[in-house]
Amino acid sequence: MYTNLNHLKFLLKDVHPIEPLFALPKFSHADWEQCWMMVESAKALADRDMAPYFKAMDEQGVQYDGKGGVKSHPQLKTIIRQAGQQGWINGAASFDVGGMQMPLMVYNAGQHIFQAANNGCQGYFSLTSGAAALITSFGSKKQIETFVPNMFDGLWQGTMALTEPQAGSSLSDITSSATQIQGDRYRIKGQKIFISGGQHEACDNFVHLTLVRIEGAPAGTKGISLFIIPKFRPEADGSLKYNDVFCAGDFQKMGQKGYVTTHLVFGDNDDCIGWLVGEPNKGLTYMFQMMNEARIGVGQTAASVAMAAYHASLQYAKERTQGRLVSEKDPLKPPTLIIRHPDVQRMLFTQKAIAEGSLSLAMECNKLYDLAHAADGDTQREAWLLLEFLTPIVKTYSSEQGSRSAALAVQTLGGYGFTMDFPVQQHYRDLKIMSIYEGTTGIQSLDLLGRKVSMEKGKALAALLTAMKNTISAAQSAELAPYARKLDEEIARIQAVLAHVARYAAADMDRFLSDATVFMEQVSYVVIGWQWLKMAVVAEAKLKSGDLGTTPKAFFEGKLHTMKFYFRYELPHAEACAKTMMDGEYLTNLKTFERLD
Amino acid sequence: MYTNLNHLKFLLKDVHPIEPLFALPKFSHADWEQCWMMVESAKALADRDMAPYFKAMDEQGVQYDGKGGVKSHPQLKTIIRQAGQQGWINGAASFDVGGMQMPLMVYNAGQHIFQAANNGCQGYFSLTSGAAALITSFGSKKQIETFVPNMFDGLWQGTMALTEPQAGSSLSDITSSATQIQGDRYRIKGQKIFISGGQHEACDNFVHLTLVRIEGAPAGTKGISLFIIPKFRPEADGSLKYNDVFCAGDFQKMGQKGYVTTHLVFGDNDDCIGWLVGEPNKGLTYMFQMMNEARIGVGQTAASVAMAAYHASLQYAKERTQGRLVSEKDPLKPPTLIIRHPDVQRMLFTQKAIAEGSLSLAMECNKLYDLAHAADGDTQREAWLLLEFLTPIVKTYSSEQGSRSAALAVQTLGGYGFTMDFPVQQHYRDLKIMSIYEGTTGIQSLDLLGRKVSMEKGKALAALLTAMKNTISAAQSAELAPYARKLDEEIARIQAVLAHVARYAAADMDRFLSDATVFMEQVSYVVIGWQWLKMAVVAEAKLKSGDLGTTPKAFFEGKLHTMKFYFRYELPHAEACAKTMMDGEYLTNLKTFERLD
Repeated sequence: MYTNLNHLKFLLKDVHPIEPLFALPKFSHADWEQCWMMVESAKALADRDMAPYFKAMDEQGVQYDGKGGVKSHPQLKTIIRQAGQQGWINGAASFDVGGMQMPLMVYNAGQHIFQAANNGCQGYFSLTSGAAALITSFGSKKQIETFVPNMFDGLWQGTMALTEPQAGSSLSDITSSATQIQGDRYRIKGQKIFISGGQHEACDNFVHLTLVRIEGAPAGTKGISLFIIPKFRPEADGSLKYNDVFCAGDFQKMGQKGYVTTHLVFGDNDDCIGWLVGEPNKGLTYMFQMMNEARIGVGQTAASVAMAAYHASLQYAKERTQGRLVSEKDPLKPPTLIIRHPDVQRMLFTQKAIAEGSLSLAMECNKLYDLAHAADGDTQREAWLLLEFLTPIVKTYSSEQGSRSAALAVQTLGGYGFTMDFPVQQHYRDLKIMSIYEGTTGIQSLDLLGRKVSMEKGKALAALLTAMKNTISAAQSAELAPYARKLDEEIARIQAVLAHVARYAAADMDRFLSDATVFMEQVSYVVIGWQWLKMAVVAEAKLKSGDLGTTPKAFFEGKLHTMKFYFRYELPHAEACAKTMMDGEYLTNLKTFERLD
Repeated sequence: MYTNLNHLKFLLKDVHPIEPLFALPKFSHADWEQCWMMVESAKALADRDMAPYFKAMDEQGVQYDGKGGVKSHPQLKTIIRQAGQQGWINGAASFDVGGMQMPLMVYNAGQHIFQAANNGCQGYFSLTSGAAALITSFGSKKQIETFVPNMFDGLWQGTMALTEPQAGSSLSDITSSATQIQGDRYRIKGQKIFISGGQHEACDNFVHLTLVRIEGAPAGTKGISLFIIPKFRPEADGSLKYNDVFCAGDFQKMGQKGYVTTHLVFGDNDDCIGWLVGEPNKGLTYMFQMMNEARIGVGQTAASVAMAAYHASLQYAKERTQGRLVSEKDPLKPPTLIIRHPDVQRMLFTQKAIAEGSLSLAMECNKLYDLAHAADGDTQREAWLLLEFLTPIVKTYSSEQGSRSAALAVQTLGGYGFTMDFPVQQHYRDLKIMSIYEGTTGIQSLDLLGRKVSMEKGKALAALLTAMKNTISAAQSAELAPYARKLDEEIARIQAVLAHVARYAAADMDRFLSDATVFMEQVSYVVIGWQWLKMAVVAEAKLKSGDLGTTPKAFFEGKLHTMKFYFRYELPHAEACAKTMMDGEYLTNLKTFERLD
């Protein structure tokens, strides 16, 4: 088992109830039974076509053939086609462009299962989904008709092509260029690196959503435009012609070895044509639609991989006997199951707290996304504000703590965890990229403290505080109130830290933002504490009502217990981060780097 | 560069001065120049024969041939022979057994260089050194003559064979058996797994120091004996005969891929002979000599690998330009070196604090080892007590935080860090085993709280407190006093935590020890803070004296700065751990594991 459907159902049905979404016009065609059936179908697909290939796709990896081709695992074609046919590429797209118009919550509940089963293969088709969404949002009718249907079917792979070798994360420095031929058609020249899914054997064509600078455009991010650049371009007669998009190599990596990462060269023979999406110089704005979804997606993927590692180590701990409790040291007695050892429980509860907590936050974000895109008025606005604030957090907490969680999975298995015979080491390796994908932890943290805290005069932050206070108000039973109080204290501490660092904001932005990552860590701990308290409120109500359906009582007790565990073992580190933030020293500035040797 | 010799010299010459050791009879033959020359020779050897093969030994790995043989990298033979010839196997052994009788400090200063250069290959010969030490300590004259010289020469590989498939870390459950033939010769039957260095192409013979139960021995750890079991046994005529020690397979791992880990079967054809070392049933006591050294060694290895990752990421940060400071956002200006970004500095200083701090602790332990083995009277006794307390800490802090440190090295390189083109991902993979080798973090933590805190009526703990108070007394300048005060507060907090949990010790040992790992984390943070304050005291004195030799001023400023950094960013987490410890809840007990699902 790589995830727990009971937990997923608990999130969708109870903690972040999806049912109110069906009252919105966009989703009025849907209902709970249909949505849950779709989630269950994802499990069947993952069990049959994805999970069994998790290890093999890692071992076999991908190989560049030196001539532009990349050999990928033979199963990949089946996976992408099946995902296309079963609605896991077009699931969240609107009816009018050929989508299924399901809430993102449902779509991503399915993706969670795929991510936990085999995160490398899931990337291929979820990336196509994101690229298609970008075209349907900002592309012309013609562009949509030309590119999107084959993407939805899993025949054509979509990608995001942003990074250039010399620029890295600094998009203002990209130099790929476009010269207009006619209308939306431009001649393209340039190079992109780290292109996930960027050409392989399993798809017939590749649709690269690429950031390019149109000749004469302003410097910096204001001069970036978005182009569709296919590997094979559709000609007027319907045939496909090679579009001078050459795969010049691939990156071999420590994890996600089955997920190809390429180096692309556009227009080396001056025959690469790109289609401008929307207006010139608005590329970055458009791309950020995809980017924001991708950030939630990466956060959710990290949560899902951590979940898979947790379940692998939990299963091991329930089957493996070793040693005896400290209080039962008689060597003549049989060894005990390791799950009975307190330290093994500590490792497992920590993983449960991180994996389930971050998945809950991802589902919160998915629901906010649905409200921000399908609701109206204040509901829409509040959802959008809160989502803006939470996006860098779900990306960062899940990836950073997810890595720590997977390390605990390895540790739970001891020496076996380090061997290729068990999947936890692969989870650990795969997870490491999540804190780098789609904006590193440092970049997310600058976004949080530098933009999101102050956006709309602090309304995004206020939306979070309101949401947390609502949970605190709901957590006033004798059992929950002490934890609600702790959460309240942490909220006050965040405000104190912001008041403290605000003094630097006007005079010295470098200093103001120098500890943005520590602030991110502090806020993340609190936000996940909030998610756990939210889960505990629901679990307590369930237990009190006695109406548990077919779910075992221990499931709900486990939620309450893990909340307490989180507040005892994890949340105190939020205060430690606050201490760092409130300390007056300034140790990472323009004078200090020479002390690194 | 994979380490900084200036830092190593600073530790040996100034922070943990080695020179007083030369006043002891055992080391009176040695002096500083000779010792430092030996360290520099280690650097030359590592540069020429080890570092260039770090990547290749990982990529090529080791392969089991299905017939008892293991293919290893061709360079390995050269490495082990050279290490033997240059004194890196027999360096710390006594003259009377053919050793060089150097302080362990010097020997391990050299090993640090090898560990940083290529940790996989270093394991082979340091393991032989440890196995030879065990034979010379407890073996007969005949056993020493028979086995040790070829081990010192790097011709024969020594190993430690403890773990059995069904027992794992629980040595009381081992079942390998021995039946006496005559004198110290016994017929052996059994299986061992996870045997590092356990048979490969680069050595001619293998000397397995193996824990076995003599027929009729008492149950549990009281019935374990230590045997020398060679792969080829020396016959009376001086020839070697196959001793029925079959390598039945190897473990493929996520890291240390060039360092073979085997499964050994002893006596499948009833022709395996082992030589009993010392007295029957005292095997575990003997083994713990090697084990304690091995624990320091693993801690130091983790520190060294983290050091190598730090230097790789530091070099990258000094060469790579990307983006601009928040205060310099003009896209027309050239991008800046990433080392100027505050968040990159944060990642680098964190690594420096962890890697140099844990190496300092390892050197403290090495010096204590020398004093405990070569001094006498109170000096010897105090050193031994303090070393007992610090051993589980150096093992655990370095491995757990070393992994976090290497993760920051990967993060500093961004996407490139995840690719096989840079070494940091290998450091990250290699490091993961260190928290498992020679007793997991959980086991070290039980040792710390369950045994070391109370050993000799608390004298080991008292020795640590005294040592820390001495450093606090020395740190009373205007610049250092605030940090000395903080360290003092943390000492008080450790005492408060111990007073708090002591209430459980009598009635409920399971509960008393249930959070041993959190206590370990708390104490470790404080101990490394102590090491940094110690380094800062020396650095401040150097700067005040103006007598810096050829070392740049920035080097010493860097020590002071990193101490401040550590106290600001890392030490607050000790208090967070204390909060967890002081919390009254008991969440990992015999009733709670059913809540894991």
